[in-house]
Amino acid sequence: MNHEPAKNDNRAILLISCPERLGIISAVSNLLLSYKANIVQFDQHTTDPRDGMFFMRILFDLETLPESFGQLEQDLAKMAEDYPMDWRLSKESQRKRMAIFVSKMDHCLVELLWRVKSKEIRVDIPMVISNHPDAKETVEAYGIPFYHIPLATQSKEEAERKALELLQGNVDFIVLARYMQILSPRFIAHYPNQIINIHHSFLPAFIGANPYKRAFMRGVKLIGATAHYVTNDLDEGPIIEQDVIRVNHRYTEEDLKVAGRHVERNVLAQAISWHVEDKVIVYGNKTIVFA
Amino acid sequence: MNHEPAKNDNRAILLISCPERLGIISAVSNLLLSYKANIVQFDQHTTDPRDGMFFMRILFDLETLPESFGQLEQDLAKMAEDYPMDWRLSKESQRKRMAIFVSKMDHCLVELLWRVKSKEIRVDIPMVISNHPDAKETVEAYGIPFYHIPLATQSKEEAERKALELLQGNVDFIVLARYMQILSPRFIAHYPNQIINIHHSFLPAFIGANPYKRAFMRGVKLIGATAHYVTNDLDEGPIIEQDVIRVNHRYTEEDLKVAGRHVERNVLAQAISWHVEDKVIVYGNKTIVFA
Amino acid sequence: MNHEPAKNDNRAILLISCPERLGIISAVSNLLLSYKANIVQFDQHTTDPRDGMFFMRILFDLETLPESFGQLEQDLAKMAEDYPMDWRLSKESQRKRMAIFVSKMDHCLVELLWRVKSKEIRVDIPMVISNHPDAKETVEAYGIPFYHIPLATQSKEEAERKALELLQGNVDFIVLARYMQILSPRFIAHYPNQIINIHHSFLPAFIGANPYKRAFMRGVKLIGATAHYVTNDLDEGPIIEQDVIRVNHRYTEEDLKVAGRHVERNVLAQAISWHVEDKVIVYGNKTIVFA
Amino acid sequence: MNHEPAKNDNRAILLISCPERLGIISAVSNLLLSYKANIVQFDQHTTDPRDGMFFMRILFDLETLPESFGQLEQDLAKMAEDYPMDWRLSKESQRKRMAIFVSKMDHCLVELLWRVKSKEIRVDIPMVISNHPDAKETVEAYGIPFYHIPLATQSKEEAERKALELLQGNVDFIVLARYMQILSPRFIAHYPNQIINIHHSFLPAFIGANPYKRAFMRGVKLIGATAHYVTNDLDEGPIIEQDVIRVNHRYTEEDLKVAGRHVERNVLAQAISWHVEDKVIVYGNKTIVFA
Repeated sequence: MNHEPAKNDNRAILLISCPERLGIISAVSNLLLSYKANIVQFDQHTTDPRDGMFFMRILFDLETLPESFGQLEQDLAKMAEDYPMDWRLSKESQRKRMAIFVSKMDHCLVELLWRVKSKEIRVDIPMVISNHPDAKETVEAYGIPFYHIPLATQSKEEAERKALELLQGNVDFIVLARYMQILSPRFIAHYPNQIINIHHSFLPAFIGANPYKRAFMRGVKLIGATAHYVTNDLDEGPIIEQDVIRVNHRYTEEDLKVAGRHVERNVLAQAISWHVEDKVIVYGNKTIVFA
Repeated sequence: MNHEPAKNDNRAILLISCPERLGIISAVSNLLLSYKANIVQFDQHTTDPRDGMFFMRILFDLETLPESFGQLEQDLAKMAEDYPMDWRLSKESQRKRMAIFVSKMDHCLVELLWRVKSKEIRVDIPMVISNHPDAKETVEAYGIPFYHIPLATQSKEEAERKALELLQGNVDFIVLARYMQILSPRFIAHYPNQIINIHHSFLPAFIGANPYKRAFMRGVKLIGATAHYVTNDLDEGPIIEQDVIRVNHRYTEEDLKVAGRHVERNVLAQAISWHVEDKVIVYGNKTIVFA
Repeated sequence: MNHEPAKNDNRAILLISCPERLGIISAVSNLLLSYKANIVQFDQHTTDPRDGMFFMRILFDLETLPESFGQLEQDLAKMAEDYPMDWRLSKESQRKRMAIFVSKMDHCLVELLWRVKSKEIRVDIPMVISNHPDAKETVEAYGIPFYHIPLATQSKEEAERKALELLQGNVDFIVLARYMQILSPRFIAHYPNQIINIHHSFLPAFIGANPYKRAFMRGVKLIGATAHYVTNDLDEGPIIEQDVIRVNHRYTEEDLKVAGRHVERNVLAQAISWHVEDKVIVYGNKTIVFA
Repeated sequence: MNHEPAKNDNRAILLISCPERLGIISAVSNLLLSYKANIVQFDQHTTDPRDGMFFMRILFDLETLPESFGQLEQDLAKMAEDYPMDWRLSKESQRKRMAIFVSKMDHCLVELLWRVKSKEIRVDIPMVISNHPDAKETVEAYGIPFYHIPLATQSKEEAERKALELLQGNVDFIVLARYMQILSPRFIAHYPNQIINIHHSFLPAFIGANPYKRAFMRGVKLIGATAHYVTNDLDEGPIIEQDVIRVNHRYTEEDLKVAGRHVERNVLAQAISWHVEDKVIVYGNKTIVFA
């Protein structure tokens, strides 16, 4: 589902990851029932029913959510002592805060600004950060603060330090909307599985720089884009979404770029939607997406 | 998931449909836990969390399945007295029996025979029935009985009566693999939501006869196919799967037919896979597909 | 090819439609050669090689184009006396002028404004006309005049008269970017095959009003959009482009609308690109698209 | 266009590649007109209008084709002295001869046999060669000779020598329908741009062995297949066609293989159709496909 309108204060999302063990679904659903929570969507995945990992996403309505949220968290923490499990409970009404990093190309940025304004993606955007001033006007027209942190006049370390000052405490996750800089491991460590990048190729094809040039040279018949979480291994992070578009011998390298832009925009926006709705669970170098 | 290899004797599928009511997931998962059943896949859908319908598919492993199957059925029947629910429990090891109806065009037939032989679709084919003799050799090469029930020399009523004699007790569901005859309500009543048809258009576009001719006249840029359950309203039954293929002004009407064949084959085979794996629930005129 | 950067003053496009007859390609290419024109792209289509219609698009470079354009037009007119043919010669450097009609929903409008600004579509937008004031700010931010012609306070005839006053002499073609009004035959007659509409369904499925509602009721598994030229027969004009997006049982009617928006945006923008680059020829109720 | 029914004796195809030069289209169309040939389809591509390469495919009808074919060839040879051009003239009625190489997996083989029998691909199959005996029955059921050339009991050199003895003079091109052996440069040299392979990934992703295993490990969201001409650089030959299919976290490695099979079948069959209809021109490491 791409869209959930009219968020209400009583709706919550519970994400659980744990080693496969008998009775987890039973235990969790009994707990929710004891609160009279009504399950709206239930998604589950097992890597191996014998000794694999178990993943679960439950969307539920609970009339007393504002009051009982804390107690429910305590009960889950207690349950996590018995079942060794990772869990996260969140209120649907509490909007995530997304920072956008951008360089010169604005197609992904504009797409995100429009989708957020149109309420297709329910997220707050406290800031946009760029190593170039080009997008300033576009961003500020939406009433969003724009910070220009140039890389020509300072070291990357210094620039990242300034960015972190702006970010910390103010954003939940970061989107690299065609941000043409490689982030340092030190920076990434602050936002594990909370930085989403759009790579302009169908990964793992054309890892690295200039994918369109190389796609043109190779004569591929499809052009792709990949949204993934950023890790220290460049272009190797967990893939959230990918898509392709058909091209042919008439496409120049420039045409490939234009075609690719449309795929990039859609793939990135889709990945962010899923991330915002807590539909993505990272496990090792892969994702479970309860789309 | 399109494919489940190596079926085991301990795996079962439980399908439940009922009006939305608090505690269903809890009740069912507790029951399964009392048998020490291990849930492998859990799918759920609600049309409306307040007063809608609730649908659930649970794939589970139970070491004692062969012995406990009967008792589990009794427990579910008992539960269905409290919660007014439709339910169906089936062993994954018990293969469904599929009859294929075909006329002259054999592309869907050949696709199905190959997929079944290749174990992509886990189903038995006790018979193929046709109003033409053309497919006899193809079918018998797979060691499957072929019955020719001509319509030129007898009434449709008579022909359907003969078909029913062959079918009853021997097949679980029927596939119309480009069977160019309309079945009577009397016949359909014997197999409610158990007859799958492939319509050679993107329904509801081009309902009725000659969809390719009309698609050609209309100048559409995509050609589609639709797999649906057969009801008394022609081409109006619940849609299981649809897909399209891109065409252009160069395509003659004959080219459209050829392009369409490939979509038909894939769409029909996909729909059958889902039906066979108990992934489709019919609700009103629509389907829930836990793909 | 979706994109042609860096237009030059020496490039021209010749479109020809005529009844099939021996020697047309030869005659036209000889004429162009006599000018030392260099053919860059040559596209051709025949409905029937014996007695059908012949269509041709030639993109060519001619160093002396600015001076020789008039003479070449005269030569083509002369040729058209021998071969009864429709032809149109245009300079690539001469940008078409596009008016956009919009109502309240702005997703198609915003997409077009961005693609034009990004030079993905080479077109001028002299004006946007709307029966609602909502899009005023969005449009004017691009420096484009916005005209609000309400329908609540005047007759449709009166409103169309005012629109025509604004349009005539100032625009070459009109795009209905989710304009929720039906244009009168009188209005359409001023812009034959020059009004492009985006219909929010995969035509001819769900002709008419509320396609998403009806798609939801019917339980389709794909949602589509269709860009077509407007004729007096509602939703029956020549189709330029169509596409679909996959949906499932989880999509509410509102979700279908959101999913559909993305298809609408892309399909409409693609159709306009082709129209602007003179790649579309209308023949009867169909289009030849030399994509 | 995927399909051309009812081939006639008067239809021919002319393919031309040459450096860009003024007047080529004129010269060729004048030559064809002098024979009173009627052009049915004309396709053209230029890599660069100034100093690039020029490619052309002309499908034409010529009433006197059987008698004039030789003379036309002479005229083209003469023209090729003036314009340094590669050209190939072929009668549509003259069917190409295709050998299929296969190992154990038969999904591509079965697809090709069925499409050829159904006249979707107009080609003769004089032989199928395999390093395993498994496909013998399937092939011979179509009345096609099957040759088992094992690799366990002889060197690859010896095996290739035997294959060449069977092939030479009897086949025009070779299809590797999931043939799990690497051909030697010596062998490939006999069939330059006449060996089509299906690679079970979206090249250049997952070049080399075990693409499905690696796709599973990498967690991609699309599975692809690539049909390409075989060169001495493994998996680096000119790409003819590619396609992908959507997968998700539920797919096991085995599921990916099954999903991939359907893409492989369609991509390979499509590439062969184009090759057979002389719609593919190789230029460097890329293809022009006049689809």
